[in-house]
Amino acid sequence: MIKANPGHFFEDFKVGQVLHHATPKTVTTGDVALYGALFGGRFAVQSSDEFARALGHAGAPVDDLLTFHIVFGKTVPDISLNAVANLGYADCRFLAPVYPGDTLEACSEVIGLKQNSNGKTGIVYVRSRGFNQRSECVLEYARWVMMVKNDTSIPAPDPVVPELPAIIEPARLAGISEAVSFKNYDIDLAGSPHKWKDYAIGERIDHVDGMTIEEADHMMAARSFQNTARVHFDQHQAATGRFKRRLIYGGHIISLARALSFNGLGNACFVAGINAGKHVAPCFAGDTIYAWSEIIAKAELSARSDLGLLRLKTFAVKNQTCEEFPGQADEGYARDVVLEIDYWVLIPR
Amino acid sequence: MIKANPGHFFEDFKVGQVLHHATPKTVTTGDVALYGALFGGRFAVQSSDEFARALGHAGAPVDDLLTFHIVFGKTVPDISLNAVANLGYADCRFLAPVYPGDTLEACSEVIGLKQNSNGKTGIVYVRSRGFNQRSECVLEYARWVMMVKNDTSIPAPDPVVPELPAIIEPARLAGISEAVSFKNYDIDLAGSPHKWKDYAIGERIDHVDGMTIEEADHMMAARSFQNTARVHFDQHQAATGRFKRRLIYGGHIISLARALSFNGLGNACFVAGINAGKHVAPCFAGDTIYAWSEIIAKAELSARSDLGLLRLKTFAVKNQTCEEFPGQADEGYARDVVLEIDYWVLIPR
Amino acid sequence: MIKANPGHFFEDFKVGQVLHHATPKTVTTGDVALYGALFGGRFAVQSSDEFARALGHAGAPVDDLLTFHIVFGKTVPDISLNAVANLGYADCRFLAPVYPGDTLEACSEVIGLKQNSNGKTGIVYVRSRGFNQRSECVLEYARWVMMVKNDTSIPAPDPVVPELPAIIEPARLAGISEAVSFKNYDIDLAGSPHKWKDYAIGERIDHVDGMTIEEADHMMAARSFQNTARVHFDQHQAATGRFKRRLIYGGHIISLARALSFNGLGNACFVAGINAGKHVAPCFAGDTIYAWSEIIAKAELSARSDLGLLRLKTFAVKNQTCEEFPGQADEGYARDVVLEIDYWVLIPR
Repeated sequence: MIKANPGHFFEDFKVGQVLHHATPKTVTTGDVALYGALFGGRFAVQSSDEFARALGHAGAPVDDLLTFHIVFGKTVPDISLNAVANLGYADCRFLAPVYPGDTLEACSEVIGLKQNSNGKTGIVYVRSRGFNQRSECVLEYARWVMMVKNDTSIPAPDPVVPELPAIIEPARLAGISEAVSFKNYDIDLAGSPHKWKDYAIGERIDHVDGMTIEEADHMMAARSFQNTARVHFDQHQAATGRFKRRLIYGGHIISLARALSFNGLGNACFVAGINAGKHVAPCFAGDTIYAWSEIIAKAELSARSDLGLLRLKTFAVKNQTCEEFPGQADEGYARDVVLEIDYWVLIPR
Repeated sequence: MIKANPGHFFEDFKVGQVLHHATPKTVTTGDVALYGALFGGRFAVQSSDEFARALGHAGAPVDDLLTFHIVFGKTVPDISLNAVANLGYADCRFLAPVYPGDTLEACSEVIGLKQNSNGKTGIVYVRSRGFNQRSECVLEYARWVMMVKNDTSIPAPDPVVPELPAIIEPARLAGISEAVSFKNYDIDLAGSPHKWKDYAIGERIDHVDGMTIEEADHMMAARSFQNTARVHFDQHQAATGRFKRRLIYGGHIISLARALSFNGLGNACFVAGINAGKHVAPCFAGDTIYAWSEIIAKAELSARSDLGLLRLKTFAVKNQTCEEFPGQADEGYARDVVLEIDYWVLIPR
Repeated sequence: MIKANPGHFFEDFKVGQVLHHATPKTVTTGDVALYGALFGGRFAVQSSDEFARALGHAGAPVDDLLTFHIVFGKTVPDISLNAVANLGYADCRFLAPVYPGDTLEACSEVIGLKQNSNGKTGIVYVRSRGFNQRSECVLEYARWVMMVKNDTSIPAPDPVVPELPAIIEPARLAGISEAVSFKNYDIDLAGSPHKWKDYAIGERIDHVDGMTIEEADHMMAARSFQNTARVHFDQHQAATGRFKRRLIYGGHIISLARALSFNGLGNACFVAGINAGKHVAPCFAGDTIYAWSEIIAKAELSARSDLGLLRLKTFAVKNQTCEEFPGQADEGYARDVVLEIDYWVLIPR
């Protein structure tokens, strides 16, 4: 009997099936320090217990994307070990803050299946959720991946394609409790004078700074997320593959872009939800990541006069600065764009 | 007077001598997070406070090998700074769990001395012990190293070669207290269905995954263990030496092999003891480490129906996958084997 | 309106102006673990809660230089983003211990301005201070940088050049409270037999060990300090610059030299003050750092029989060992010297 995890194949998934993922992880100030050292975030709420407490938090909450990566990492052995491609995300909502000391678990429900016409692959749709030790859902998102079919003789399942929102309605973004108020938010201490009202729809922001990625950086990050996708770690195998290089976890680029976005969006301190994310091109060690953002929409939250929502599209670009805002281009993307992410952020009014 | 530590030479050691090592270290969740990020461990007990508490632990205990490396690191300035070679380990027993917040100290007793016939070197045998802040011994092991003799005019000491067990008797493995029970061990959450009964003597397990090592990784690990052996850190000096490269701390490979072994031994959550370890060949940055294990023996623990012991031999191999289980070969080892380690693990029944 | 931080230019500064810096940061055991892993410090007081408590500390205090780097990092976006050169430091005093859990903020007061005769640049003198969450000043230092003038049509300010002490008087070094006593300092556990009386003025100490720096190391350190100076992180831009390489943060070399100095100064456990620091030459990834120190002066502290002060000059040198003590040479420095730092350390008597 093979003891190593063979992963799942397309035919192993059934609509409605729930997978409880290993390994539970207590998030500590050690993880937070490491995340800070790897990505360089400077949002004050996540950096300072005192700043967070002034808003009504119990202490500095964990960076939303660190929570995402930890939950995502848990799903890899069960969902995407044999994935051909990560096709997309949608409806990702951060539902409760995570604090150091909290323990995260994850599970996924299969919400759709569609075999491809070649009979050799199929698309699996899952809704993954992260829970804290009180069984509160802290994060949920839908994701779809293309999987290999191991036994092509098994008949195709009835196709089920879930309806997923292209944009999350602001009312469904529930990550800020009533106990938290931005009334005491200190913009001087946070490092940016720009509040919700200062951003205009259509405005484009060059985040200016660039960050070069080392092999040690992205592997350390992915290991700390307990993400086991082999392509990130094994140069011996990668050398014989398509890219000849270890592939950087797409989430690494998301976190870099988010950290870079501080320069221009310094008060956009929480990611409330991710509408969609697309990894346009792979990244490798040695690449330098730049980013820019466009304000797509603005929204108010009912009964909250202290904060508002910005809907952003952030583009990450490699080895090219962003003064000219490289993004979508005819039939695709401008050269060297590596990431487009569409998300809602919370920002004081 | 020279203030820098000159280290000890063969003639400085006397049988019965006790060396109290610097530097005491409080192990924190920061160390644990860093260890996780460097090696990628996924054993649930060490990852989740909640999982550990369900077994009766006070919280997630520190990885056994992190404890080993910290204790080992403390011995380097006094024992092996002038070592020619690390010859072996034996009788390594993990005697009590270490939790974040505990402070570790170490001491070593010289238990054997044998000058070599060349008169220029000799073998020093020590028993090293790690203690927590309550002076409880958490770890002990025997080790022997070949040392340079600085003053060859000093007569050879009477040879004393200690008797060390080739295999630790299970009854001498005392790392699990009665307060801890594996009855509530959740195999779903731990990520592997395989318990003690599912492993057969002679069974071989390919751990499949590979991990490429970067210079930053192994140096960061060794510094966090406060291991000061110069060969790991100084490329300027290494460039003129035999390998032209910084040598990776042998314990780094042990930890990588242990983390890789999760894939196939996911419930083997504690190292109870190490019978023997051999660093077959040196490793350098850029090497990709793979591992496989063989079940050598199984043992029960008297009065424990909830857990059992597996005796494993794990081989780490560089730049070669392990489908064919490269291990011992005639008069030595198969090509690219870098580590053979023989140890006992605790696993739920 | 440009949202990214443009930084300040020479003409933006006024004498007497106070700048409150972002981002407040809670220092955690995670930061401490990471700092240890990056620099390899072994001073017992900062490594062990138990050792520190025996002296009257609440627990292991944070390494003085980690405090320095965190405070310094906060000043970068407001002070030196557009700096042409960091010219010097003076009068740096560590005024209160920082413990994990403390939150640091920083502010700077402009204490001098002097436009250069070219009309295009000028020198800005600031006194920067770090505060904990109780508004206690934990650190202060003076620093002067050469800034670009953005609008050269603005008239030069009246020149103000502050008087700064070349050497800090011992009585002004106040970092050790009366609650702390070195009476219980355990030199065996600390790892060095040498106390205050054992060091002679004029004595030179070769710290022997060398440490090679990787790109991942220095970037991770600088990010953990939330230091955003672009030259450390952006290889794409650096490739077109003078050095073609990412420049290592000067403070990284200070921390490496300090950690290396343990070998010879193992009981010099606190930096009480920094008289002056000069970054003689830039460092890049791949460089191996060595260090040596000279005892410049010794001082007693009134009413303290348990500890004394040593004034040290430590030189860091790259890719060259220090047996011959390379330091100042006619009209400058010996080849490969990268740092000269003049500072006071506390050491048990």
